[in-house]
Amino acid sequence: MEKVNFTEKLSKFSDHWSPKVIAEMNDYQFKLVKIEGEFIWHNHPDTDEVFIVIEGSMVIELEDGKVELGAGELYVVPKGVMHKPYATSECKIMLVEPRGVVNTGGEESELTSENDVWI
Amino acid sequence: MEKVNFTEKLSKFSDHWSPKVIAEMNDYQFKLVKIEGEFIWHNHPDTDEVFIVIEGSMVIELEDGKVELGAGELYVVPKGVMHKPYATSECKIMLVEPRGVVNTGGEESELTSENDVWI
Repeated sequence: MEKVNFTEKLSKFSDHWSPKVIAEMNDYQFKLVKIEGEFIWHNHPDTDEVFIVIEGSMVIELEDGKVELGAGELYVVPKGVMHKPYATSECKIMLVEPRGVVNTGGEESELTSENDVWI
Repeated sequence: MEKVNFTEKLSKFSDHWSPKVIAEMNDYQFKLVKIEGEFIWHNHPDTDEVFIVIEGSMVIELEDGKVELGAGELYVVPKGVMHKPYATSECKIMLVEPRGVVNTGGEESELTSENDVWI
C-alpha cells in the first residue's frame, strides 16, 4: 500500500458526516470525516468506536454527560452506548471501527451515509 | 473512560521503543511509542500493524523498499511482512494492533518490550 497523508486525503472531499475509508487493518477500517452541526443519537450494538480529532473541536454527548475533544485527543465510545456527536464549526476527525459499521448505527436517518467509500 | 490527550500522555515517559497503551477498542489497543535509532527486522505473523506519526519523522524499511513517514501520516504494515523501523532523531508515533502483539514479533531481542503497559 501507499502511505496515507491525512491533509492530502482531507483535501479530497467537503461533505459533512460522510466517512471516507483511508486504510484497513485486518477487518478494521480507518475513516476520515468532516463534521459540522448536530448528528443524531445512535449506538453501535456490536462494537466500540474510536474518535480521534485531527483539526478543530467537537463534543460527544453521552446519556450521562459529554466529552469535549480537541486536536490530538482520542475517545472510545463503548459498544452499545448511546452518543450524539456535534461540532459548532467544522471539525476533522478520524474514526476507527470494524469494516461494515454504519455511521448512524441502527437508526434510519437522512444522515445515514453510504458505507465503505474509499478515497 | 476519560478522553486521551496525546501530548499529555507523551509527557509521561521518555524511553524509546517501549509502547505504552493509552486505549482499547474491542480487542485492539492504541499505543504511544517514542523511537530513535534503529529497531530490528521482525514481522507479526498474525496481524497487520498500523503506524501513525504524531511528531517527527521515521522510516519503515521493508524487504522491497522503504516508506518515509512524517507527522499526520499513516502506514499499514501487512501481516507477515518483514519490516525495520528507524528514526534518525526522536519521533513520536501511535501504533494500532490487537492486544497481545509483542513489539519485536517472533524475534528475541534486547529491544523486546514488556507488553500491555498502560499510562
